[in-house]
Amino acid sequence: MTIKNESLELHKKYKGKISIESKIKIENSYDLSLAYSPGVSEPCLKIYENPEDVYKYTSKGNIVAVISDGSAVLGLGNIGPQAAIPVMEGKAILFKKFGDVDAIPLCLNTNDVDEIVKVCKILSPSLGGINLEDISAPRCIEIERRLVKELDIPVFHDDQHGTAIVVLAALINCLRLTKKSKNNLKIVVSGTGAAGSAIIKLLYVFGFKKIHAYDLNGVLHASKYDTYDSLRKELLNYIENTDDTSNNLQELLKDADIFIGVSAANILTKEMVLSMNKNPWILALANPNPEIIPEIAKEAGASIICTGRSDYPNQVNNLLVFPGLFRGVLDSRIKIITDDLKLEVAKSIAYIIKDSELNETNLIPSPFNESVSKSVANTVNVFAERHKEISQLLDKV
Amino acid sequence: MTIKNESLELHKKYKGKISIESKIKIENSYDLSLAYSPGVSEPCLKIYENPEDVYKYTSKGNIVAVISDGSAVLGLGNIGPQAAIPVMEGKAILFKKFGDVDAIPLCLNTNDVDEIVKVCKILSPSLGGINLEDISAPRCIEIERRLVKELDIPVFHDDQHGTAIVVLAALINCLRLTKKSKNNLKIVVSGTGAAGSAIIKLLYVFGFKKIHAYDLNGVLHASKYDTYDSLRKELLNYIENTDDTSNNLQELLKDADIFIGVSAANILTKEMVLSMNKNPWILALANPNPEIIPEIAKEAGASIICTGRSDYPNQVNNLLVFPGLFRGVLDSRIKIITDDLKLEVAKSIAYIIKDSELNETNLIPSPFNESVSKSVANTVNVFAERHKEISQLLDKV
Repeated sequence: MTIKNESLELHKKYKGKISIESKIKIENSYDLSLAYSPGVSEPCLKIYENPEDVYKYTSKGNIVAVISDGSAVLGLGNIGPQAAIPVMEGKAILFKKFGDVDAIPLCLNTNDVDEIVKVCKILSPSLGGINLEDISAPRCIEIERRLVKELDIPVFHDDQHGTAIVVLAALINCLRLTKKSKNNLKIVVSGTGAAGSAIIKLLYVFGFKKIHAYDLNGVLHASKYDTYDSLRKELLNYIENTDDTSNNLQELLKDADIFIGVSAANILTKEMVLSMNKNPWILALANPNPEIIPEIAKEAGASIICTGRSDYPNQVNNLLVFPGLFRGVLDSRIKIITDDLKLEVAKSIAYIIKDSELNETNLIPSPFNESVSKSVANTVNVFAERHKEISQLLDKV
Repeated sequence: MTIKNESLELHKKYKGKISIESKIKIENSYDLSLAYSPGVSEPCLKIYENPEDVYKYTSKGNIVAVISDGSAVLGLGNIGPQAAIPVMEGKAILFKKFGDVDAIPLCLNTNDVDEIVKVCKILSPSLGGINLEDISAPRCIEIERRLVKELDIPVFHDDQHGTAIVVLAALINCLRLTKKSKNNLKIVVSGTGAAGSAIIKLLYVFGFKKIHAYDLNGVLHASKYDTYDSLRKELLNYIENTDDTSNNLQELLKDADIFIGVSAANILTKEMVLSMNKNPWILALANPNPEIIPEIAKEAGASIICTGRSDYPNQVNNLLVFPGLFRGVLDSRIKIITDDLKLEVAKSIAYIIKDSELNETNLIPSPFNESVSKSVANTVNVFAERHKEISQLLDKV
């Protein structure tokens, strides 16, 4: 039986993947009087008197909504909210397994930015955080930005930042392994959607300076400013200016050291890899079919190859990030997941792999390595503690 | 320790009452490839091709959202969405325990009818049904009516119909016990909010003809039509006309056989009960303090007394209804919970108690009687099956 058929059977057998359980027993009317009426009025009143107590007496502090409109699901595209449910339920059980987070999958019957923002705000009293998922660009960027600004709980669009953080973790380990300097490396990012734009921004913040981008409209270039949407206009701030206006990927890759693809299958040819600088790093992350087949990239001289697939070494997998990140964010009650925090998380994932273990096929830890989510959560908690101290110091000034 | 303090400690210890668990194991990357990428794309595509398959491959068919705006919580009133969470989590775990239904508590940061309706519609792809809870009248009536009309999943406002169904079940057993005829009995309902209005409507549909109502504005009377909101105007259709315009409860109760209170503590006096017909039935359901203390009602000649409390006999408890009702509704995929179905459910609850067991202090079964929710669910399934047959017959005409 193929994986597809086996997955289908599994989903059919259990009718979905999530179950909502009680943490306390109800065996008799006394139990009932504690869990429900009349006892329950006491925690209600405590929260009414002191809204912060909602974190003390309810599940809010451990609940994350996994919210999608089904407009950009895996490699399937805009399949709508109902067809997106299996993915969101999958995400929910990964949250539980790897982060002990209670995640509610909610698929929305709207693609309208205002409506999605409105729904999230109306649902926020019950939620400790929001994980946006599989919402198409550029709407996902605006939705996240507005929610981060307008809500008092943390909001994280995993397709953007989860991917960006793991890509950075991989590059940090490439630097550790090769002793190269980030200042001199030319990077070409193929794809400027949710993942691509977040990767560009995070690599820029980390300190890579020679970043270039390519998408369906060709090479990202200041000369096209007037034709760009707001997202591409913003990305121009992070990419290196170039005199080259050839507008093709082949030209752009000459002298490049790193290719990062979050675009489409097979757009990177053997010739292109051959035209790059010696021993290039190839991150071909399109799923399930990468931008170049790893064996071909290797033949063309790639020294390091990462994909999004579990059947090759160095899998770039968001699962390394979101469970531990939200575990830490919920525990430390951080409200905004800043770029500084993302950098710290990327470093913590990279350094799961010790110097002695680091090699070309062991650059990214396995999500089944239990120390990953613990390390990420701990990094968030330490970061939160430090920032609390700093803001307390600033208060005293 | 008091129940209140013990309840508080319990909520604090477990930080709320619900947990979201995985139904399938994820121990290695093969499990991951079935539950998540790449295998998960197969159920997604099946649902995309055939939307009905969402009930086959996801949890939708077993998920009910417990939705409240926190505007009419227990006896506490408008305490807001966050303070309402302990009640909605309580409801959720009762759904699980008594109906094996996965219930998501969602407390909304809005009291606006249009916004609540909109949010429910936008969330509906993930949900098998909606249980509205603790939303104040008359908004709750309009919200439910619009959602029933506009959504393709079942919607049930428990405060209205759950209470009405159990009250009817109790009255059915009073009739069985006393051999009285429903045609001759005069009923006075005190309170025309969510519960009161639903009780009046359901008793009317069942066949009680001499129904009267009393609320904060005095006796419900056609002469006041122009001063009434839409709900009270509608209720005039179900109550008996009277020439009496004394406008007080004392007068209204003369010659009454049944008092049903869903109003406020202590509004029924011993004198009022004494002025009723002989051996009256008193349902004093205000919680935690009933309209009359049962011992006093008894002294005044009440032959049957029901309350909303678990420490007296004959507890009118919605818990007898919603878990089994939704179990049946989800299993049979009924979209509208009609009055006919509510009547059937009330009968099935009443007849849990056998003729030989029926007496003045055993009119309503205990929610811990396991046959209750099974019987209710079975009643719904039989009802659904019968209606399917009827509509198939009609199709052939």
